[in-house]
Amino acid sequence: MRVLIAGASGTIGRAVKEELEQRHEVITAGRTSGDVRLDITDSASIRAAFAEVGPVDAVVSTTGTVKFAPFNEMEAADYEIGLRDKLMGQVNLVLIGRDSISDGGSFTLTTGALDRDPIVGGSSASMVNGAVNAFVMAAAIEMPRGQRINAVSPGVIEEAMEVYAPYFRGFQPVPAARAALAYSKSVEGARTGVVFRVE
Amino acid sequence: MRVLIAGASGTIGRAVKEELEQRHEVITAGRTSGDVRLDITDSASIRAAFAEVGPVDAVVSTTGTVKFAPFNEMEAADYEIGLRDKLMGQVNLVLIGRDSISDGGSFTLTTGALDRDPIVGGSSASMVNGAVNAFVMAAAIEMPRGQRINAVSPGVIEEAMEVYAPYFRGFQPVPAARAALAYSKSVEGARTGVVFRVE
Repeated sequence: MRVLIAGASGTIGRAVKEELEQRHEVITAGRTSGDVRLDITDSASIRAAFAEVGPVDAVVSTTGTVKFAPFNEMEAADYEIGLRDKLMGQVNLVLIGRDSISDGGSFTLTTGALDRDPIVGGSSASMVNGAVNAFVMAAAIEMPRGQRINAVSPGVIEEAMEVYAPYFRGFQPVPAARAALAYSKSVEGARTGVVFRVE
Repeated sequence: MRVLIAGASGTIGRAVKEELEQRHEVITAGRTSGDVRLDITDSASIRAAFAEVGPVDAVVSTTGTVKFAPFNEMEAADYEIGLRDKLMGQVNLVLIGRDSISDGGSFTLTTGALDRDPIVGGSSASMVNGAVNAFVMAAAIEMPRGQRINAVSPGVIEEAMEVYAPYFRGFQPVPAARAALAYSKSVEGARTGVVFRVE
């Protein structure tokens, strides 16, 4: 398979690349690094990236930003960041990419454990993760040409605990390599409309 | 209690009003009808409504629009409608209203069964419902002054089946009066961070 990874330079993206490149041709994409430039918040950039890459069998997104701040400091504009980036950025990868990927190809998006286990300061992350999970479930029943779509919702990544530990006390860290297995399951398996939770 | 119902002229809103006005002072709000004018997509309108109504103990939202269309016709701008209206409209009611409602007061938002049981044409509704459900769960742990927040997620409403039946084949319709009980549970009970599903 030819697999495009958006956000391939991140902690999860690197692990997914390592897992998939053992068996597949992996094309990396990122805002400032990788085989192709890709800014998921910019539809023109997504179109250009798919045009440059050509036909692919799977698109994996391991990218997306949200604002973290205490709820009493969060205003509408702060939620917009996550809606523009992690939600509609990933959704736009699907809306634009669905014409470029092969029959039976797949999209795998990224959410995270705050979809079910909220933390202080994480209301935007929870909102966006819930939105992506539900979108994936719904889009799956209408994907064209046998295409599939899933999400991976990992716990806090072990390699990122140095930064995130104070916000995620009590969370069981998940090694990036273990989270990567869920992406492999989505890309190389046959399921669709599923949120693969990695605890 | 003083209870503000946003979207009080809708099928669910009317049933919630009937249920709650037996025991509480209900103030109705709507874009074109009710005791006060309120357009949830307009922050200035929300601020004006809360200023006009004065202190309330509970805010119930039974309003919010999304676009329904086959997935292959849905583009980013189509999803924006739901994000602006049913998602951020309801969230803005909370962000702006949290300073106006009493200690221990509550917000009750509305989602729907497409959060878990998708239909053709409903990918935006599913996305938005998933977002609101997860937002409620997360905001609940940070609400100020003992305030609570829940969502009600009813199945397709029996009184609306005349219009919706072709899209919801096989769904068990829920009478609006039964859905209204879940709003009563949220407003008059003590739970928070919950999605009350009415099947």
